Amino acid sequence: MAGKIRASIIGGSGYTGGELLRLLLMHPQVEVRSVSSEKSKGTPVTKVHPNLRSMTSLEFVEAAKIDSDVDVLFLCTPHGASVKLVEQYLQRGMKIVDLSADFRLHNSAEYPVWYGHPHPRPELLSKFVYGMPELHREEIRKAQYVASPGCLATSAILALAPVVAAGLVDTEHIVVDSKIGSSAGGASGDASTHHPERAGTVRAYKPTGHRHTGEIEQELSGLIGGRRVVVSLSPHAIELVRGIFSTAHCFLVKSGLKDVDMWKTYRSFYKDSPFIRLVKEKEGIHRYPEPKLVMGTNFCDIGFELDAHAPRLVVMSAIDNLVKGSGGQAIQSMNLMFGLDEKTGLWFPGMHPV
Amino acid sequence: MAGKIRASIIGGSGYTGGELLRLLLMHPQVEVRSVSSEKSKGTPVTKVHPNLRSMTSLEFVEAAKIDSDVDVLFLCTPHGASVKLVEQYLQRGMKIVDLSADFRLHNSAEYPVWYGHPHPRPELLSKFVYGMPELHREEIRKAQYVASPGCLATSAILALAPVVAAGLVDTEHIVVDSKIGSSAGGASGDASTHHPERAGTVRAYKPTGHRHTGEIEQELSGLIGGRRVVVSLSPHAIELVRGIFSTAHCFLVKSGLKDVDMWKTYRSFYKDSPFIRLVKEKEGIHRYPEPKLVMGTNFCDIGFELDAHAPRLVVMSAIDNLVKGSGGQAIQSMNLMFGLDEKTGLWFPGMHPV
Amino acid sequence: MAGKIRASIIGGSGYTGGELLRLLLMHPQVEVRSVSSEKSKGTPVTKVHPNLRSMTSLEFVEAAKIDSDVDVLFLCTPHGASVKLVEQYLQRGMKIVDLSADFRLHNSAEYPVWYGHPHPRPELLSKFVYGMPELHREEIRKAQYVASPGCLATSAILALAPVVAAGLVDTEHIVVDSKIGSSAGGASGDASTHHPERAGTVRAYKPTGHRHTGEIEQELSGLIGGRRVVVSLSPHAIELVRGIFSTAHCFLVKSGLKDVDMWKTYRSFYKDSPFIRLVKEKEGIHRYPEPKLVMGTNFCDIGFELDAHAPRLVVMSAIDNLVKGSGGQAIQSMNLMFGLDEKTGLWFPGMHPV
Amino acid sequence: MAGKIRASIIGGSGYTGGELLRLLLMHPQVEVRSVSSEKSKGTPVTKVHPNLRSMTSLEFVEAAKIDSDVDVLFLCTPHGASVKLVEQYLQRGMKIVDLSADFRLHNSAEYPVWYGHPHPRPELLSKFVYGMPELHREEIRKAQYVASPGCLATSAILALAPVVAAGLVDTEHIVVDSKIGSSAGGASGDASTHHPERAGTVRAYKPTGHRHTGEIEQELSGLIGGRRVVVSLSPHAIELVRGIFSTAHCFLVKSGLKDVDMWKTYRSFYKDSPFIRLVKEKEGIHRYPEPKLVMGTNFCDIGFELDAHAPRLVVMSAIDNLVKGSGGQAIQSMNLMFGLDEKTGLWFPGMHPV
Repeated sequence: MAGKIRASIIGGSGYTGGELLRLLLMHPQVEVRSVSSEKSKGTPVTKVHPNLRSMTSLEFVEAAKIDSDVDVLFLCTPHGASVKLVEQYLQRGMKIVDLSADFRLHNSAEYPVWYGHPHPRPELLSKFVYGMPELHREEIRKAQYVASPGCLATSAILALAPVVAAGLVDTEHIVVDSKIGSSAGGASGDASTHHPERAGTVRAYKPTGHRHTGEIEQELSGLIGGRRVVVSLSPHAIELVRGIFSTAHCFLVKSGLKDVDMWKTYRSFYKDSPFIRLVKEKEGIHRYPEPKLVMGTNFCDIGFELDAHAPRLVVMSAIDNLVKGSGGQAIQSMNLMFGLDEKTGLWFPGMHPV
Repeated sequence: MAGKIRASIIGGSGYTGGELLRLLLMHPQVEVRSVSSEKSKGTPVTKVHPNLRSMTSLEFVEAAKIDSDVDVLFLCTPHGASVKLVEQYLQRGMKIVDLSADFRLHNSAEYPVWYGHPHPRPELLSKFVYGMPELHREEIRKAQYVASPGCLATSAILALAPVVAAGLVDTEHIVVDSKIGSSAGGASGDASTHHPERAGTVRAYKPTGHRHTGEIEQELSGLIGGRRVVVSLSPHAIELVRGIFSTAHCFLVKSGLKDVDMWKTYRSFYKDSPFIRLVKEKEGIHRYPEPKLVMGTNFCDIGFELDAHAPRLVVMSAIDNLVKGSGGQAIQSMNLMFGLDEKTGLWFPGMHPV
Repeated sequence: MAGKIRASIIGGSGYTGGELLRLLLMHPQVEVRSVSSEKSKGTPVTKVHPNLRSMTSLEFVEAAKIDSDVDVLFLCTPHGASVKLVEQYLQRGMKIVDLSADFRLHNSAEYPVWYGHPHPRPELLSKFVYGMPELHREEIRKAQYVASPGCLATSAILALAPVVAAGLVDTEHIVVDSKIGSSAGGASGDASTHHPERAGTVRAYKPTGHRHTGEIEQELSGLIGGRRVVVSLSPHAIELVRGIFSTAHCFLVKSGLKDVDMWKTYRSFYKDSPFIRLVKEKEGIHRYPEPKLVMGTNFCDIGFELDAHAPRLVVMSAIDNLVKGSGGQAIQSMNLMFGLDEKTGLWFPGMHPV
Repeated sequence: MAGKIRASIIGGSGYTGGELLRLLLMHPQVEVRSVSSEKSKGTPVTKVHPNLRSMTSLEFVEAAKIDSDVDVLFLCTPHGASVKLVEQYLQRGMKIVDLSADFRLHNSAEYPVWYGHPHPRPELLSKFVYGMPELHREEIRKAQYVASPGCLATSAILALAPVVAAGLVDTEHIVVDSKIGSSAGGASGDASTHHPERAGTVRAYKPTGHRHTGEIEQELSGLIGGRRVVVSLSPHAIELVRGIFSTAHCFLVKSGLKDVDMWKTYRSFYKDSPFIRLVKEKEGIHRYPEPKLVMGTNFCDIGFELDAHAPRLVVMSAIDNLVKGSGGQAIQSMNLMFGLDEKTGLWFPGMHPV
């Protein structure tokens, strides 16, 4: 790049937009030009994102007034809103990273299944690359438009991709039991997020039929030539603000697999993926992934355990839903789209303890 | 009963013993005669269980000095210790409720599998009834000796028993993903329970090979004439002190099942079981079981969801690991053993919010 | 009493009403006749208070339709609403316990100071006794109408009353720094109680000017013949659902005070008060009061420490804001009003651990 | 600097050492040469600090084998250990930043008061500068040796310094009521930090006589020519891992002070201090400092409120005990000692929500 990447964000007052902004402000190759919010226009972004006090003097503008003379536009708008907004920007030449679900599914027939309505612009779906660098690095490098993955989907796909691709597991009986923090529900509260009700709970959230199932099955199926993959996804809201821990329970189709086989499968699959850390210790207290240890970071930690008692493999993954599950992964794609090292602006550790 | 039931507790300084004591002290038909603790002998029980201040003036005695002229003896000793202690009491005529795992498995061959060593007194196993009233009410009524179930086992068995008994689910592919509080690990801490490390974590604990698998499979198998049942149990330590939430992911062997079928199956199975509450609301924020809502109580709340997308049934259960999962269930058995209503001393609600 | 005390609750859908209901349902001498809620009328109370599932089949009615042929009426209505409602019941002969602030302050001139508006019916104030049995036991026994204290006020007054009454502390420099749980804010959430914002925070809430200051000063002043007492109250919202911990920092007017003097002062003042537990251990981990240990109970635990470095006394108190700070204390008053032992229906311990 | 600053850490396996290491590894002008730990020597630092996986391949060495050919040595050793270790390094010419309490108090007579034993090398005390840049920026720039402040002391001093320096408050009646997270107690647990006991508690920790009182009084007194300042410090362990919130309750010696006066006092005092953020909003949910918002950062957020009811000023401060309260502040001093901008390597925001 000659100069810095000029970026604007549409929909910057939510948790996704705020986290994207935090990361872009620290990115050495990015200049944030404007951030929009309809309800907060005219107010400093620090009123909504108080963590950014002293870090920026930006004020929210309405979407219609963002600086669109930019190299990249991030859409942090709600599902259904991105598809309406995007049209006006498609002819401008800028790159676009959409963090909503509007362009994640390639097959428009899947939208009614998971989102309850037909896709309003199915012809646009093929223009977007699914923005998961670990699976689509080369396509993202060449992409003009990227649809950044959902947070639960990210944790599930990254846990499962290597073993599905290797044909090791029964693809009809995959269970993904996820544990998620409250920030995944967004910045607008309701009765279920009132602290006395939400604190310390374990609450099944969509034990069946969660929307992210669609993108998980699409991506896993894509690894095996489009063959059918059925994923049973059940998220649980637990006492946590940031983080997702997904436990993928798989039944093996091969017998006699050893830990060393699993290590090879995962290491090989992720050999070029700096943000994947394999975590499987024989001793100590941090033997498997933990969301705490990736909080604030773009890492996805993955561990596994073979069951000696049954032909089962348990794979565990931990991410920060707002970073690798959202804003961080979007920047990781942006880095690739602009020819940068994908780690740029994202290469920092989490905290311990936290 | 002519007078009150005289009871003593061996091993009363742990969380299990403390909770049993809390409940026995409030039980209208019980008189607690003595409580033992080797390490705390001579000190008031309130030093160890400060919640009982003003409630009792009992002091711990050493086990050798407990008042054993009692009607019932509770053993809250560690696994492996109960079997050694119990012998001296077997000829005394008292009833015994053992809260350890030493007498839960009927088949002595299972002890090496799950506990890593042969059972030292296999001939005693047949003398003990597995103390889960919802499955063995009549046997418990007649029992002299009861082996009270494990906490994770309780949550898993109660979730699954009706559908396994009804032959609805594929018994080779049952996944139980449990979320547990820190009190389940007992009163003695280690590096993994140090607050900065344990707080706010999601940490897989024995993702394969957990000991309670043995009793879960035994009990479920017992419901279908001893046919094989394979349970894949994976507990996760989460931010919670008290409580277990188990998510049982089952694959259905029948198609076309409706909610109404499931309701009938569960209602019928538990029609005489006051501590089972079926929780499945169509609206509101408390649609499924939550450990918070049973905290401090002997209830096991159970909910379910059929998956429209896959032949899957998700069953959810919530208990307080120290009450229904331990001391409360032991008293529920005791009530039956002495001809009392099983609700006696246990019929009170939890708190909301908490 | 010949039969049971017949009771109705107006305003039963909030946390205060729900907790009062939980306790009344378990009370051996009370029969709950009706519970009102305008917004939830016609629905089972268990929809709103899911902890009470299996415990009651009551449905909410509108206030206008409550069964008012009762012995006691509890008002759990918001501040400002009780004073409007109460009129119609004053001539009916029933006893009334109001849990709002509407009748707590004796001097009507204090209402504009703390509540921002003149009291609409100042002539009624003298009819109500301030319902803190530890200070006004005999008056409550004879009372027809009781104004039950605020939660923060309860924790502060009970901590300070003995030393203020004994003339030990500088009444111009009393600081009460309180730590409170989210349930104290009630069942209706707003942006500040959205879990991602409220969880894990320490947030000053009204660091100056909190309304409860008025009743604290009234009650402490009443102990010393109406002489002026100035209390600087600063509550902090912390990660906690139930519970208040108040730290009262006092400066001593006498020198040479020893622990034994303090013990005598507190023991003497509270010798007839079963719900006050003095907690001051020389060793172990539970040396001072902790809200956890009184959760769900009517206890107020009090501890203290003399500062060897400065003429300062630190007094600490812990209560459950919804029990001793609200519904439990109201029942304690009710017990006295009906000639019962004040412990009736309230004499049970908390949990450990929790 | 010609090249990077070469740094070694003695005592790197605790939370303080780990956090210092996290920050130094990310510092653009620092090269970490070695890190010692007696108990973990020979193992990768990532075994102890799992957040640093993929970030470093350093292994712990024993202290005797650290690379001491460095520009700066950080001592993260326990109180009492630093003074023994430091001698051998004093003649080597390196700069030293000691994070223990061993050199914080200038007056050796204070050591017996607060630490219970005479200082073994009182002649060394004058060689160390108290490492709080906001108070001693110029001295630190010239310092060879720095004693980095305690975490509670940092939060208290920064809250109080401007108003004490300006003579606004009664220096005989200052109350500091602090709320602290569990990480402040260090990486070694005991019964009080066992999660079931520590979680969700409010536990007074040294309500009188806390050691940090000594350095707070020293520094505040230093601002007013050595005149006596008495601080009553009471810390409380609350549900929090990282963070300190200190509430300083002050009584004013001047009447008629307005918010604008306070703003001027604080802005003026901290005009050159980039890590101090004044937080006092008229609306919204983040009106005052919150530890969450500074987690992982070197900021100290400060807010205040004048009491209309009494001549009282409440000042609130929030820090991350392991960053501004420990490792971050040590690096801030290091930056000054080496002529760098004090923000170098420390200028990044916290997260929201978290």
